[in-house]
Amino acid sequence: MQKKSIHVGMAGTRFMGRAHANAFHQVNRFFDLPAVLSLVAVAGRDSRRTAAFCKQWQVERAYGRWRDMVRDDRLDLVDVATPNHLHGEMALAAMEAGKHIACEKPLADSLDTARAMARASRRSSCHTFVWFNYRRCPAVALAYRWVRSGRIGRIRHIRAHYLQSWGGEETPMSWRFRRRQAGSGAHGDLNAHLVDLARFLSGDEVKTVHGAMATTFIRHRRTLGTKRKRSRVDVDDAFSFLVRMKGGATASFEASRLAPGHLNDNFIELNGEKGSLRFSFEDMNVLEFFDAELEEGSEGWRRIVCTDQRNHPYADAWWPDAHLIGYEHTFTNQAADMVRVLCGQEPLVPLASFEDAYQTQRVLRAAVLSASEGCTIPLTAVK
Amino acid sequence: MQKKSIHVGMAGTRFMGRAHANAFHQVNRFFDLPAVLSLVAVAGRDSRRTAAFCKQWQVERAYGRWRDMVRDDRLDLVDVATPNHLHGEMALAAMEAGKHIACEKPLADSLDTARAMARASRRSSCHTFVWFNYRRCPAVALAYRWVRSGRIGRIRHIRAHYLQSWGGEETPMSWRFRRRQAGSGAHGDLNAHLVDLARFLSGDEVKTVHGAMATTFIRHRRTLGTKRKRSRVDVDDAFSFLVRMKGGATASFEASRLAPGHLNDNFIELNGEKGSLRFSFEDMNVLEFFDAELEEGSEGWRRIVCTDQRNHPYADAWWPDAHLIGYEHTFTNQAADMVRVLCGQEPLVPLASFEDAYQTQRVLRAAVLSASEGCTIPLTAVK
Amino acid sequence: MQKKSIHVGMAGTRFMGRAHANAFHQVNRFFDLPAVLSLVAVAGRDSRRTAAFCKQWQVERAYGRWRDMVRDDRLDLVDVATPNHLHGEMALAAMEAGKHIACEKPLADSLDTARAMARASRRSSCHTFVWFNYRRCPAVALAYRWVRSGRIGRIRHIRAHYLQSWGGEETPMSWRFRRRQAGSGAHGDLNAHLVDLARFLSGDEVKTVHGAMATTFIRHRRTLGTKRKRSRVDVDDAFSFLVRMKGGATASFEASRLAPGHLNDNFIELNGEKGSLRFSFEDMNVLEFFDAELEEGSEGWRRIVCTDQRNHPYADAWWPDAHLIGYEHTFTNQAADMVRVLCGQEPLVPLASFEDAYQTQRVLRAAVLSASEGCTIPLTAVK
Amino acid sequence: MQKKSIHVGMAGTRFMGRAHANAFHQVNRFFDLPAVLSLVAVAGRDSRRTAAFCKQWQVERAYGRWRDMVRDDRLDLVDVATPNHLHGEMALAAMEAGKHIACEKPLADSLDTARAMARASRRSSCHTFVWFNYRRCPAVALAYRWVRSGRIGRIRHIRAHYLQSWGGEETPMSWRFRRRQAGSGAHGDLNAHLVDLARFLSGDEVKTVHGAMATTFIRHRRTLGTKRKRSRVDVDDAFSFLVRMKGGATASFEASRLAPGHLNDNFIELNGEKGSLRFSFEDMNVLEFFDAELEEGSEGWRRIVCTDQRNHPYADAWWPDAHLIGYEHTFTNQAADMVRVLCGQEPLVPLASFEDAYQTQRVLRAAVLSASEGCTIPLTAVK
Repeated sequence: MQKKSIHVGMAGTRFMGRAHANAFHQVNRFFDLPAVLSLVAVAGRDSRRTAAFCKQWQVERAYGRWRDMVRDDRLDLVDVATPNHLHGEMALAAMEAGKHIACEKPLADSLDTARAMARASRRSSCHTFVWFNYRRCPAVALAYRWVRSGRIGRIRHIRAHYLQSWGGEETPMSWRFRRRQAGSGAHGDLNAHLVDLARFLSGDEVKTVHGAMATTFIRHRRTLGTKRKRSRVDVDDAFSFLVRMKGGATASFEASRLAPGHLNDNFIELNGEKGSLRFSFEDMNVLEFFDAELEEGSEGWRRIVCTDQRNHPYADAWWPDAHLIGYEHTFTNQAADMVRVLCGQEPLVPLASFEDAYQTQRVLRAAVLSASEGCTIPLTAVK
Repeated sequence: MQKKSIHVGMAGTRFMGRAHANAFHQVNRFFDLPAVLSLVAVAGRDSRRTAAFCKQWQVERAYGRWRDMVRDDRLDLVDVATPNHLHGEMALAAMEAGKHIACEKPLADSLDTARAMARASRRSSCHTFVWFNYRRCPAVALAYRWVRSGRIGRIRHIRAHYLQSWGGEETPMSWRFRRRQAGSGAHGDLNAHLVDLARFLSGDEVKTVHGAMATTFIRHRRTLGTKRKRSRVDVDDAFSFLVRMKGGATASFEASRLAPGHLNDNFIELNGEKGSLRFSFEDMNVLEFFDAELEEGSEGWRRIVCTDQRNHPYADAWWPDAHLIGYEHTFTNQAADMVRVLCGQEPLVPLASFEDAYQTQRVLRAAVLSASEGCTIPLTAVK
Repeated sequence: MQKKSIHVGMAGTRFMGRAHANAFHQVNRFFDLPAVLSLVAVAGRDSRRTAAFCKQWQVERAYGRWRDMVRDDRLDLVDVATPNHLHGEMALAAMEAGKHIACEKPLADSLDTARAMARASRRSSCHTFVWFNYRRCPAVALAYRWVRSGRIGRIRHIRAHYLQSWGGEETPMSWRFRRRQAGSGAHGDLNAHLVDLARFLSGDEVKTVHGAMATTFIRHRRTLGTKRKRSRVDVDDAFSFLVRMKGGATASFEASRLAPGHLNDNFIELNGEKGSLRFSFEDMNVLEFFDAELEEGSEGWRRIVCTDQRNHPYADAWWPDAHLIGYEHTFTNQAADMVRVLCGQEPLVPLASFEDAYQTQRVLRAAVLSASEGCTIPLTAVK
Repeated sequence: MQKKSIHVGMAGTRFMGRAHANAFHQVNRFFDLPAVLSLVAVAGRDSRRTAAFCKQWQVERAYGRWRDMVRDDRLDLVDVATPNHLHGEMALAAMEAGKHIACEKPLADSLDTARAMARASRRSSCHTFVWFNYRRCPAVALAYRWVRSGRIGRIRHIRAHYLQSWGGEETPMSWRFRRRQAGSGAHGDLNAHLVDLARFLSGDEVKTVHGAMATTFIRHRRTLGTKRKRSRVDVDDAFSFLVRMKGGATASFEASRLAPGHLNDNFIELNGEKGSLRFSFEDMNVLEFFDAELEEGSEGWRRIVCTDQRNHPYADAWWPDAHLIGYEHTFTNQAADMVRVLCGQEPLVPLASFEDAYQTQRVLRAAVLSASEGCTIPLTAVK
């Protein structure tokens, strides 16, 4: 019997375009799924680049204008892998055209747009997915299950940072440093992941932001392709804020592109009444667990390598026990769960919808307000 | 030739009393110093306990009232190792009596008292020392030197937490949970160390507190010696806050007694333009260094075990290269530096005076205000 | 212009079959190479399994008999991914048919067969490759370059172990436990990798084996598909031996399938006159380097995450800086180097030929002799 | 009531002399013991040095000739902290004089002397103790208890190395490089500790040595106090060997003074049927435990910081929970256990007697024979 097909059209051919294309390419090789996902169309403004991309990834159709692609009747799902300022327009058009949508994070470059996207998704029968891919590290998905099953008890502290170091003086201007295209800097790029992970793992929601700091250390950057010309940066290099969760836990978030020694250090720790869990993407196959319920004198942080086919989420799709996976597998894992949901099955752990990502964006906005106003901001003040 | 003697009288016979007594006991065994330090008097309210303490540590004179000890003409230095609410009164009396003073941290249970102590010290010719002992871990002292010599360049981020886990439901009431005796909870106990380390290592001062959260998770605790009676806790279990330094760096501080998996995790990391340094007291002999100036592709966090007699502060006093030291050595190292200063020599790295500790206390106070007011507090608002 | 094609036929559809198929599938997506590699044929005894495999990996032709595949004129390269006892026969037939050959390790199930394979390869104009895939972890390839450029000076000690833990009582009988099919147990499976890495990294050869121990802890295992029936194990569960290298270095090797806590711990450390390097496959993206030439007091193990596109071998093919890769990437990296060599280019670091793998097999054989004879065996005694 | 006194006379004023003096100095400050131990006499050939040592450590009597000290009627215990070649003569004389004896490791510079010492101890009513101090790291003592209580089941592998890096070209000649004074190099100095730990922790004995390698990399060293004169080294810089235990486990031992990156890396790992334990003195407060009996998918190496007063051996003598100890505490812990034994109590974990240390020395000797003969040596061949 022929399996159902899911035809995907994707906008974007850069870093995220490649990561998504690979996920679509690999997902049916490794996962046993109820449908076959195929990337059949790609839209990009640079026609030569788009053609080369299509050849590289064996994609049938190249579009110069994403609006044309969105109208393509043969597509089931539109995947948005472009800079942030385009997310909203594309996603709304795709929903309009009755497509399911997968969208890169952060949901949008402004809260207004994010709200509009969430609203439209409520009125639509389409599935919406946001690429919060870190949820689908086996270690993170395992942590999700363990928090749900009560292994660490009620959570008291969340401590999260996403630190990188690529943003030094030598890094030239790009869309990531322009508010108009990116919406914000490290805050939207990195804190978006942290807030998503904190909400996802704890199952709790933010009540209040208790202070925030946005910092731009490097105000001007060399314009790409020039030697001397310098452009003005109008987004943050670093952003930190403090939060109280509804359940009473404290949370701290810090994002930076200027933390030498941290490459891609998406880190979160949860301290509960009965134990603690922590994760860093720099050691992405590992979940650390401190079980405070063990016999006294035998407790210690436990380094759990999450490559056990029978017991660790997503591990059985890949290699025999004990073989590490890498960065791009998180996208393939997400593609597998999207296929499951589109076929009426359950994902291994919940996917972020537009509605869910909008809640994350409200938190980011409250933090921006707290930084600019210099005071505590209850989340209810941000609609 | 007979070396000069420094006679010490100490108030306090509990944990800190023992740590100080050991330091006084060991300092001349291991360090070659210009004077001999002798603990010759101890004051404690419980006369039996004080007598036993004196016997254990071969101390000549036991005092039931600290005021009597302070008046003892034979003493050169009074050491205050009591609960926080007694620091001020004792220190002022000792200064009055012309003694040098060493005082446990935090300097006082209130900013008013701390200010009075700092003022008195300015008018006095006595030396004042505060037991910010972590400055004297070889790894911390090395970090101090390296920041000064420019190894990590201008500092952009400071990230500090002091996490412990002893404060669960099962822990009974004690002075540490009473505002009247302790002044505050984790904030004064643990954040005091963090703020001291941040100021000490960076050489920079706090400009503004950008938000703070104080949390008491466990409101009532079993009264010691009873089964059912419960006392009300009026200090924080956890306290976090955000700071902007005068030099532009961001800083975050978090203290908790309820973080399972962290025993005595006094952690600080500095990210500079040219590299990063980090330290945790749970791996106290180690300084981690990321040198961003190394050849590209060869950079990495470097785990420096600070036990090299020729190159690491304090190491030559102890054992041959490569032998670890422990918790109490930080006190002995401080005792050695106090002897040096009392003899007109330089300490290996600066000691905290009352003036210095008062500046730390101002920061703690600004954080308390920020938490209660829900807004940004410039340090200038706290005198 | 159309790129040259390299058509591959592969024997084997199990674990290694999948790993190779994925490598062939991915290599031209990620690497910019002078030819396009295509897996066009697969041979397997179980026709249903082979058909499913071909469908999964989009392979055109399925063969029930490998001899038929080897004769397929359209193939350029035959890939042997079967149990060890079939390597020799297949490889010799493929060379006979004028194909290039890639063969899984260990080269053969006996030294006689390995010698015959090496001899045949000398007389043939075909390229021969052995899947010593760990050479192509970026961290290992970087270590290779650094040893060559003198970073650690003359090598004094090599310390290698490959520890796993899957071989407990509960694991049923399989070909890996039968001498007839596997040749040996942990020794051929795991020590083969260690000896290859030691020779590859040091550039030195074994002079003498100075003692060895082969151990079978579990003598009988449940026959698969039965409840009670038990089969006799006639290979080793663990094997360790000591070696003197020609250049004077000592080396130790240990392999085990019964070391709880070690999942896939392929570990090697080199101590040289000027520094040390170490690697574990359980942290496969990391090379640890101790540079003894750094300023005194600043030395420490440096944790180098090998994901820098400009400076770390193979990293530029994958993702932007700072994104981890996983197990299967080592195979794709090898596939890329094989394509390069088949097109007359240089591999990033040397590939193991049959001749090279035969030298490794001689060492394994000398170790077996040392274990059985209870004495030192010079490598010259093993031809 | 006055406690019983134990008067100690010690030979040796160098590194070990200081470590022992400190232990004797501290033991009654920290441990609540049935007797008071006092170091009352010290013997050393250099009278000025001995006098200074006595002043530093407040020791009453200095002896120029150890024979005079041994005859001192006021002594209960003679402590031997001299170079290895003096151990035998001193210990035999002290036993003759009816003293209890504590002796540094290795027991003697030759097996003949060790055997004579063990024999004499059997005929004597004196207690004999050997300073295998690492047994008394809380982490090691805890491992001892856990192996005894069956936590890791039957042991299959022991893997031990003691690696240092101080023995480079720049290190001048000293008694440690002369066979006449030291007996051997790294082997007696470092492997002695490893063999003791392996026997102590496993409770098992060596059956056979299956190969060994002794290596001297640096044949001549600068004579101390000269610029050009060079002396010949006649001991090993590195020594490794393989062992089969009576219970069937394999064991490997490696000692080196030329392993850059390893400072004082006394490491041992035990793999059992039900789990694994490992320890390194470079992280001396930590025991790592892999419990293979935990729920599947939740296993991982557990980092147990052994500073829990109620549950970890020796921890209650020192500081409140969670405070690290250092190198010298292992000696103080041993001094406490020696006092207990001399008062008829049990030590926390067994102390090594001369008899016990002689068994360790037999293993070292068998390894030397295996290295020189190039063959397997059963321990029964070494009397």
